Amino acid sequence: MFLARVTGSIVSTQKVESMKGHKLLIVEPYRLDTDSRERLLTTGRTFIAVDTLGAGEGDLVLVCQGSSARLTPETKTLPIDAVITGIIDSVHVEKKSVYCRKDGD
Amino acid sequence: MFLARVTGSIVSTQKVESMKGHKLLIVEPYRLDTDSRERLLTTGRTFIAVDTLGAGEGDLVLVCQGSSARLTPETKTLPIDAVITGIIDSVHVEKKSVYCRKDGD
Amino acid sequence: MFLARVTGSIVSTQKVESMKGHKLLIVEPYRLDTDSRERLLTTGRTFIAVDTLGAGEGDLVLVCQGSSARLTPETKTLPIDAVITGIIDSVHVEKKSVYCRKDGD
Amino acid sequence: MFLARVTGSIVSTQKVESMKGHKLLIVEPYRLDTDSRERLLTTGRTFIAVDTLGAGEGDLVLVCQGSSARLTPETKTLPIDAVITGIIDSVHVEKKSVYCRKDGD
Amino acid sequence: MFLARVTGSIVSTQKVESMKGHKLLIVEPYRLDTDSRERLLTTGRTFIAVDTLGAGEGDLVLVCQGSSARLTPETKTLPIDAVITGIIDSVHVEKKSVYCRKDGD
Repeated sequence: MFLARVTGSIVSTQKVESMKGHKLLIVEPYRLDTDSRERLLTTGRTFIAVDTLGAGEGDLVLVCQGSSARLTPETKTLPIDAVITGIIDSVHVEKKSVYCRKDGD
Repeated sequence: MFLARVTGSIVSTQKVESMKGHKLLIVEPYRLDTDSRERLLTTGRTFIAVDTLGAGEGDLVLVCQGSSARLTPETKTLPIDAVITGIIDSVHVEKKSVYCRKDGD
Repeated sequence: MFLARVTGSIVSTQKVESMKGHKLLIVEPYRLDTDSRERLLTTGRTFIAVDTLGAGEGDLVLVCQGSSARLTPETKTLPIDAVITGIIDSVHVEKKSVYCRKDGD
Repeated sequence: MFLARVTGSIVSTQKVESMKGHKLLIVEPYRLDTDSRERLLTTGRTFIAVDTLGAGEGDLVLVCQGSSARLTPETKTLPIDAVITGIIDSVHVEKKSVYCRKDGD
Repeated sequence: MFLARVTGSIVSTQKVESMKGHKLLIVEPYRLDTDSRERLLTTGRTFIAVDTLGAGEGDLVLVCQGSSARLTPETKTLPIDAVITGIIDSVHVEKKSVYCRKDGD
């Protein structure tokens, strides 16, 4: 899995029937800043993931990829390869806090 | 999943029997321009995806990869690893519109 | 899926029993030249794919990756992650021909 | 599979029901230093993996990705794509030790 | 699949029960030198693969990734994503030999 920031959303009217009614969010994978090792940085990549948890713009989330994206009750039969499986409260690296949801960072 | 622009198509006469009759489009993955954060840019990569929605050249589409590409009624038994699951109407990032189908961009 | 040029072959005597008798080709993934947008270029990567279509050196082929590589009659039970599913006749990008088998390019 | 260093952990209260109670660690993939060929280096990437072995910060671990991450008794039905399958004692490359757990390196 | 050189091995005492007794080798993916097109070069990456063929350090091998790594008799139920499926005798690219096991290269 990887950590990602929710940055936006997409609208698609013409889509595979089973995809109707599912929320699709834009997520930007994040990685540890390997210089300071004290904060998370964007990787600059853009992915689309299904959300079933009510994640909102700005949230840091956990994203599961591949066939396992279908292992949630809501996504079992969907043609999807990425799903949000958690909204992150905090991230600690080497005993230091590198992300806390209340920080808004 | 990822966003991609349909840029062309391929013709193949000699192919695996089950692939006959399926439309194969060239798709170019797009990502957010992380400088301006106001538009989408090509990643410069080239993939081939099966289309069952009638997508056309220039359309921005949603592409699903991996075994999940077989989770649509038309692709269940095909040896494919990418399928177009939606034609994108609009993309919003951080409250701004970065793509709208009518813009032709 | 991706487009690739067949560039060679490998020989392996000592292999997993089920792999015996299957043709293994070297394929080099190609992408669109994003400068001219008029020809295909090598990505410089090297993959091995199973061939069941009689593809030959120089041919541009369609390659399917992952578990779907087992979705052809000949590859159902093989420990493989890539199979050639088509020999490409022509590729068109933005109304222009960027590859034609007869060109020998 | 790949080698990775455990560098931290994440906390997520709001998550997919089946994920509750599973330990999620931050792992940083490592590779051989191809200059000296005598030590392992970080790749600078950040992944999240489920741990069922009691791995701790600083440990070098073996990580399995994809659908196979569900092939352990504890992870069978989870929406996960990475699991720690071993804690590494030592790594030898070309007859030389490049990692030994007691070294603390 | 990809070609890789076996460069070493790892030892792990504390591991998922089903992994006990399986040989884990370090493999370094190789690609064609796209300048000379006459030899294989390391990609500098480091992967771990299960070996069931008795491959040894220095051998060039064929590696299968993903769920298909479980399609050999010995690996059916293992949490692994890479297996060695062949020991390479020779590699030919564009009619030239770029690798021969007896060369020791």
